[in-house]
Amino acid sequence: IEQQDNKELKILLNEYHYADVAEILDELNLDEATYIIKLLDSETTSDVLMELDEDNREKILENLSIKEIAEEIEELDTDDAADIINELPEDRRQAVISNIEDEEHQAEIRELLAYDEDTAGGLMAKELVKVYETWTVAGCLRRIRGQAKDVTRVHSIYVVTKEEKLIGRLSLKDLITAKNEQKIADIAKDNVDFVNVNDDVEDVARVMSKYDLEAIPVVDDNQILLGRITIDDIVDVMKEEAEKDYQLAAGISQDVEADDSIWQLTRARIPWLFLGLIGGVGAFLIMEGFHEAFSKYAILFFFTPLIAAMAGNVGVQSSAIIVQGLANDDIKGSINSRLMKEMLLAALNGIILAIFLFLFVWVSQQDAKTAFAISISLVVVIIVAGLIGTFVPLFLDKRGIDPAIATGPFITTSNDIFGILIYFTIAKLILGI
Amino acid sequence: IEQQDNKELKILLNEYHYADVAEILDELNLDEATYIIKLLDSETTSDVLMELDEDNREKILENLSIKEIAEEIEELDTDDAADIINELPEDRRQAVISNIEDEEHQAEIRELLAYDEDTAGGLMAKELVKVYETWTVAGCLRRIRGQAKDVTRVHSIYVVTKEEKLIGRLSLKDLITAKNEQKIADIAKDNVDFVNVNDDVEDVARVMSKYDLEAIPVVDDNQILLGRITIDDIVDVMKEEAEKDYQLAAGISQDVEADDSIWQLTRARIPWLFLGLIGGVGAFLIMEGFHEAFSKYAILFFFTPLIAAMAGNVGVQSSAIIVQGLANDDIKGSINSRLMKEMLLAALNGIILAIFLFLFVWVSQQDAKTAFAISISLVVVIIVAGLIGTFVPLFLDKRGIDPAIATGPFITTSNDIFGILIYFTIAKLILGI
Repeated sequence: IEQQDNKELKILLNEYHYADVAEILDELNLDEATYIIKLLDSETTSDVLMELDEDNREKILENLSIKEIAEEIEELDTDDAADIINELPEDRRQAVISNIEDEEHQAEIRELLAYDEDTAGGLMAKELVKVYETWTVAGCLRRIRGQAKDVTRVHSIYVVTKEEKLIGRLSLKDLITAKNEQKIADIAKDNVDFVNVNDDVEDVARVMSKYDLEAIPVVDDNQILLGRITIDDIVDVMKEEAEKDYQLAAGISQDVEADDSIWQLTRARIPWLFLGLIGGVGAFLIMEGFHEAFSKYAILFFFTPLIAAMAGNVGVQSSAIIVQGLANDDIKGSINSRLMKEMLLAALNGIILAIFLFLFVWVSQQDAKTAFAISISLVVVIIVAGLIGTFVPLFLDKRGIDPAIATGPFITTSNDIFGILIYFTIAKLILGI
Repeated sequence: IEQQDNKELKILLNEYHYADVAEILDELNLDEATYIIKLLDSETTSDVLMELDEDNREKILENLSIKEIAEEIEELDTDDAADIINELPEDRRQAVISNIEDEEHQAEIRELLAYDEDTAGGLMAKELVKVYETWTVAGCLRRIRGQAKDVTRVHSIYVVTKEEKLIGRLSLKDLITAKNEQKIADIAKDNVDFVNVNDDVEDVARVMSKYDLEAIPVVDDNQILLGRITIDDIVDVMKEEAEKDYQLAAGISQDVEADDSIWQLTRARIPWLFLGLIGGVGAFLIMEGFHEAFSKYAILFFFTPLIAAMAGNVGVQSSAIIVQGLANDDIKGSINSRLMKEMLLAALNGIILAIFLFLFVWVSQQDAKTAFAISISLVVVIIVAGLIGTFVPLFLDKRGIDPAIATGPFITTSNDIFGILIYFTIAKLILGI
């Protein structure tokens, strides 16, 4: 297709949805992708750019001039525009902003850039439809026709006082089902949900998903309407959040994808592997400390992988449930009652598993005392592992640290060490070594 | 508050959003919750019911009569109504449906109940706004005022032929910004996205999030418009999906929450722990097979937890990236090239870690040969673990099995066993035992 047949290519690509064009571009090499971006008009390409993979977008933007980027940005909603500008290198940012011709758009983007990315302000768009409480339905409809042209999707219409204070909302449906002469103040719903511009995006996501909202207005401390956040941005936030937690649980510390370079992937993976290495060395030192038991009870050493694995698995299970509960905000009751419950649960699981282990060791080794020592240790190890898995994320959360880092390698490694230490200590006591 | 002061309680609760009332009810005991549900009018309580925790909802519904349930359902949108009926025990379902007074509502719910829960049909609602292509804008606005009363949120207006075939869409915005005498066929956008009623919900979620849609129409094989799916339902699907994957990665096989009973939690957790137990027994048998090496090289046995932990961690890391890539549909290229990349990546990580391990063993044991044997084994074990972690989810996905089950305990356990086997075999060869 790449044989310079520009016209045909242009017609072909215009038939695709911009998300599909972006997918095609992600597959092409940089020169081809830049070529196509320059070929299409900025109305289409600005949408395509937004849908591109972040790494690819960055590279394509490097190949465009300040003026070309400013033209793309002109076509975007303010929230997307601010996101793209944030991705540019420091030195090009100001130049691009000054090249935006529409002065209002320029000022709005400057405002958005001032907010922290992780707050409602960093996510909101300035595009919204607002009406003043004193307008009539007929006047309102007339003016909305003007405002709505700039807004891709209307959702709610926000009702403000003449000081721009948010006091209510309306749906387009309310408006078209109302009588022309009614006052806005009379038909507006005053129970409007909103978030503060400094609220954390995760809280915004929680509010929107709890109340099933599709858009939420953003206000400042004086209730002045500043912008709105739509559900599609929140869907992206939720997805990123879920992916981050999943990767943390698997021991991957940066946001990486399967297609990233080996170097990027190594940087994301090796810190956790180092942690595992240190844990393994710790386990080695513990076992070395018990090496005298070796001559008589070598069998004890053959069960360390089992003990370590069980400690790790139980720890990950209990921490995962707590991390998820914290994320969904449905962990109730005190830490103590939570630990008590986990202790009972772990004891139940531990006893069931220990019975099987006891039978296996007894039958295979014909040595009930050793079998007993190993099985009792397993129960204690599982209980301790469950308690650690429950306590650590709750503790981190209380301290304001993301509890998701507590799952995965961190819990596994510490439980490995504690497990092996407990195991040898108990076995030594029971067997009287 | 529970002192029979009904009126005051009612006024108090009516001021809250239904999602907040549901949160309060989830905290109360069953009798109190049922009492409040009966106190409030069905318009409020139907919404509250939908927001309740599934377990609590089930219990409250058990305490309501067929007639009371039917009244609640009367107030719900068809998709929510069908969900609630699906949760009822078999024998009450038919009775409740027959008690729904609105016959159209009844027929629609019956239709929805026929679809599989995991398909677009199981998620869609019958409530939507549709217009015929031959109508004019003015006639359209008049009739929409009627239709829209039943529909909580309008989103898009779907344009159909007189045979009910979906041919386009319109936004309310398009409608109010158009001239009254225009024909619908002229202003409708014909590039309407849609899904088939039998499509998998995960595919629907993918399409909606890719194209940033807030609602999508559902059609049958003949393009006849059947219903629509809104983004709030998709947000719930995505959340559940992410939670399920997260729990599977942590070795929890059923959908459980931190507040479930100990018995439920045990049932979800113990199968994976059994797997770990069997893996541990496997590791025991392998080590027992190498027990002759024991007298001379006891140190080898002290490093098994390290080897097992590294094999497990690497396996989980690589499988997590693949599982996530598969979920996002951005795994490109052949399995072979994917395995080749993982091999290079694992080799790089393995060599870095092995250098540290070599230095530690060499310095602490003054035995370069043993240090060399252990470090080389570590590299090989990490490479194999990475390959297994990459291959298994890709293989499961090709077979149509959810690759998420491949992360967590499954990978950890198999990698433990392979890792220990490889480790002893290589060490034996190098040390010439």
